[in-house]
Amino acid sequence: MTIDRKSLRWNGWGPTNQPNALPDGSPQWDFMREALGMSHLPVTFAKPFEEVRLATSRLSHDTISRLSAIVGGAQVKTDSYERAFHARGKSYHDLLYVREGKLDMAPDAVVYPRSADEVLQIIKLASEEDIALIPYGGGSSVVGGINAMAKSLGGAVITLDTTLMTRVIQIDKIAMTATIEAGIYGPALEAALQKHGVTLAHYPQSFQFSTLGGWIAARGAGQQSNRYGKAEKWLVSAKVATPKGIWTTEATPASAAGPNLNQLVAGSEGTLGVICEATVKIHELPARKDYRGYLFKTFAEGVEAARRINHADIPVAMVRLSDGPETYFFQALSSTSSPDSLKSRLQRAYLKFRGFDGQPCLMLIGHEGDTDTVAWAQSRTETICTSLGAMKLGTGAGQKWYHGRFNSPYSRDPMMDRGIGIDTLETSTRWSNIENLRDKTVAAIEKAIADNVPEVGARGIVMSHVSHSYPDGASLYFTFVFPRQRDREVEQWQAIKRAASDVLLENKGTISHHHGVGLDHTPWLAEEKGVIGFDMLKKIKADMDPKGVLNPHKLLG
Amino acid sequence: MTIDRKSLRWNGWGPTNQPNALPDGSPQWDFMREALGMSHLPVTFAKPFEEVRLATSRLSHDTISRLSAIVGGAQVKTDSYERAFHARGKSYHDLLYVREGKLDMAPDAVVYPRSADEVLQIIKLASEEDIALIPYGGGSSVVGGINAMAKSLGGAVITLDTTLMTRVIQIDKIAMTATIEAGIYGPALEAALQKHGVTLAHYPQSFQFSTLGGWIAARGAGQQSNRYGKAEKWLVSAKVATPKGIWTTEATPASAAGPNLNQLVAGSEGTLGVICEATVKIHELPARKDYRGYLFKTFAEGVEAARRINHADIPVAMVRLSDGPETYFFQALSSTSSPDSLKSRLQRAYLKFRGFDGQPCLMLIGHEGDTDTVAWAQSRTETICTSLGAMKLGTGAGQKWYHGRFNSPYSRDPMMDRGIGIDTLETSTRWSNIENLRDKTVAAIEKAIADNVPEVGARGIVMSHVSHSYPDGASLYFTFVFPRQRDREVEQWQAIKRAASDVLLENKGTISHHHGVGLDHTPWLAEEKGVIGFDMLKKIKADMDPKGVLNPHKLLG
Repeated sequence: MTIDRKSLRWNGWGPTNQPNALPDGSPQWDFMREALGMSHLPVTFAKPFEEVRLATSRLSHDTISRLSAIVGGAQVKTDSYERAFHARGKSYHDLLYVREGKLDMAPDAVVYPRSADEVLQIIKLASEEDIALIPYGGGSSVVGGINAMAKSLGGAVITLDTTLMTRVIQIDKIAMTATIEAGIYGPALEAALQKHGVTLAHYPQSFQFSTLGGWIAARGAGQQSNRYGKAEKWLVSAKVATPKGIWTTEATPASAAGPNLNQLVAGSEGTLGVICEATVKIHELPARKDYRGYLFKTFAEGVEAARRINHADIPVAMVRLSDGPETYFFQALSSTSSPDSLKSRLQRAYLKFRGFDGQPCLMLIGHEGDTDTVAWAQSRTETICTSLGAMKLGTGAGQKWYHGRFNSPYSRDPMMDRGIGIDTLETSTRWSNIENLRDKTVAAIEKAIADNVPEVGARGIVMSHVSHSYPDGASLYFTFVFPRQRDREVEQWQAIKRAASDVLLENKGTISHHHGVGLDHTPWLAEEKGVIGFDMLKKIKADMDPKGVLNPHKLLG
Repeated sequence: MTIDRKSLRWNGWGPTNQPNALPDGSPQWDFMREALGMSHLPVTFAKPFEEVRLATSRLSHDTISRLSAIVGGAQVKTDSYERAFHARGKSYHDLLYVREGKLDMAPDAVVYPRSADEVLQIIKLASEEDIALIPYGGGSSVVGGINAMAKSLGGAVITLDTTLMTRVIQIDKIAMTATIEAGIYGPALEAALQKHGVTLAHYPQSFQFSTLGGWIAARGAGQQSNRYGKAEKWLVSAKVATPKGIWTTEATPASAAGPNLNQLVAGSEGTLGVICEATVKIHELPARKDYRGYLFKTFAEGVEAARRINHADIPVAMVRLSDGPETYFFQALSSTSSPDSLKSRLQRAYLKFRGFDGQPCLMLIGHEGDTDTVAWAQSRTETICTSLGAMKLGTGAGQKWYHGRFNSPYSRDPMMDRGIGIDTLETSTRWSNIENLRDKTVAAIEKAIADNVPEVGARGIVMSHVSHSYPDGASLYFTFVFPRQRDREVEQWQAIKRAASDVLLENKGTISHHHGVGLDHTPWLAEEKGVIGFDMLKKIKADMDPKGVLNPHKLLG
């Protein structure tokens, strides 16, 4: 495999030997404790792996032998670490289970095929033996998308780990497409492409630990999706192993030969087949990258700037607008001086003098491309921002964000160690509804947290940003930090999740802009798709996978 | 209805009283006769409507009464003109039948509902009585998409004409979307939007006589699709009346909540339901339009320029590259002086002196948008073109094309009156395959015409252009003119069509880039989609329309 599972945390984010992102004594701890109204920060370490017990594998020797005959004995793993590693994804919800060592969902075996043909044989075996088969790439799902859930209680589960399928099959520098096996991790993919001067440039926050196939299956978005597109946009064609055989989708640009079936692969989340290979749109490595910051007096003005940039035909790689709380909170968290230091107070005084006395909102704009285009586009976006009263922060703020762009998830494990919960959710809606949806969602999450705190005076922090934008609207990404109710952690999370999801659907937001549906969003999908659309998806699934072995209960419930 | 059917040609293109685009004595006739190697131009007028006889309607009085109860008696048409008008589309293949008065496919009644609810009731009636129901907008299909084909021989057919459903329901100038009923014709749609300063800017060649719903159903492309997108790209959400009820698709930008079902509506060609309403992406009316021409020494250099423009992040509305034969033929046809005139000979001598002594290829580039962006983008595209040796022709060539951009189809009827056939077909492929596919398709069509000529020495003219381009590839549009074999006209056309279609599929082209599948392309769709994809589409159809009454035999055969 491209990343040895033993070198990665089975119950958290990043390498096993990752230094603590928030060591004891960091000034952030006091700030967080106060901001969350917590009387103290309890010690809530995860159960060490040595103390975790897994149930005996439910697979027969015969099944293991059949799997070994397909992929070779060394690629069938039944040891506890592999089973624990593949039990669940990386959501806050998942961590509540794995940190406690509750591994009822662990797979009975993990298989690592090396080709689409081997995948086909594994699917055939799973169908014949009626065993749940979970397609697994990096395992970074935060919606339960790869959780090792059986078809029904007591059923066996095999996880199919795709990460040995990593070959770059073709790079076409005229058409600017590349055909690559889907189990490749982000860094390996970019290394292979950049060696030839090209890039896919799909950089989600999970980039280091997620795979090409996972990005497509969940309709993921990279941070620079304005330029490079979401997965469903850069997907040209897919090779999918299904119970019916190999399904290769059409590859011609913008064909009118019936509906585009690539768009059924994107978002299928392993329920129709295993994405083994994909042809994707690539780009020349940009000669120049320009990331810089602007400070807006209000969120509304920032949204208006983002909208105008999208409607003005300006090539832009990223437009990211934090709301007031997020601007403040991340500034405070990443600062080495406390919010009450002289420097911080002087900064606030200056902003107030300039008219930024409410909750200033940080916008980061990224341009990538050839030097002339970046220069032209940068001057255009700057004109839009300053015409709306924004203060120029220069490239420093942009570079700071760029260098730390994959870092956020590393802070979660230490926060989990100290009684603090942190989760995120995301949506999208049209431009005319952005502020309404943001305000209502923030209020719903804040209320749900307030209704579920562990002690009097405790409270949550809810922040949001616009991270991806389109002609007709934009995404909204919410981060919420809260003191955990240690006696009812799952119930607390469910209450917050339910409140937020209900309000999204009631206010014309989607249940997910790029995390996908997995298990956690299934209660809302039918409402979003409508009876007829949802039924259509169920029929497609039933026809493609009549035994229902492929990622059961995901996406469609 | 928005355009009275009596004011339109039932057996040709445009208004009934359209002046002849090629009157007798035009210099073009001699040029065409010579170019096609025809000894003379026979007179081959269409049969006048008065001489055409239609079979008796197969609908019972009871069915007519039920239809009248739904839409009102005045909106159920059974007269011969309405039935003849709705019999077939506007392909060369269709004209071979309708010009001869062969109307075996004419519908037994035409109904004009005024709302999605009325459409639902009509679908219910058709399902109950097992009658084929043909959704019909402008009727401009050139692939048999709206032909009044029964479920089986002798079965009845009702055509559902959507053109009374024309309301603009909402214009959202913040999100830049509009919700509009799908039966609206292009000019009415643009008039309604432009009154508010906005535009959809979907201008196919059929713009004057095609509808919003038809554009979506067939995944159509406007001439400026580089800026405004094909139908599947500007479609935000659709309201579709189906046998299961009203199907409203998701409307959130770039959602990750499962596959995007809008992409099953686009390209469904009336087989899953009737598109009653659509929300689409709109744009501010461009402050400036700049259309200008460049002459390339070779087609390959022109393709390279188009490719570089697509890969350089330059906002461009249109890049259109004619090959050598098309550049020459249209210049000759549109010129008032003959190709052998002094002016023409001097022009050719000058081009030869400048190195354009092969088959120069005309590229037209269109920019639309705000003044600054157009100026910047125009200078960028010009730099790319001239760096590849192109000669600047200025805005004259661009304006000439722009003003005549809907005119080509008007020449077909007079050509049909004089023994000349003309047809078009289109495909797309990736950049690295454009020239290979063009060369092989031209050769296949030329050979098929040569094998099927009415007299010794006769021959065809085959021309092509790139008209729509994308990051990964471009479309190719072929026009072929040929002397008709009057004793076997349908067989002649079939031989050419089959040869061209086979060569497209053998060489990684799609069977259609924007005309759709209809009836004429069904023999190639299964190969293009593959067994699994094609079967999936059939299953979706069978589930949505279990009686199979919606546009039977279209798309899926």
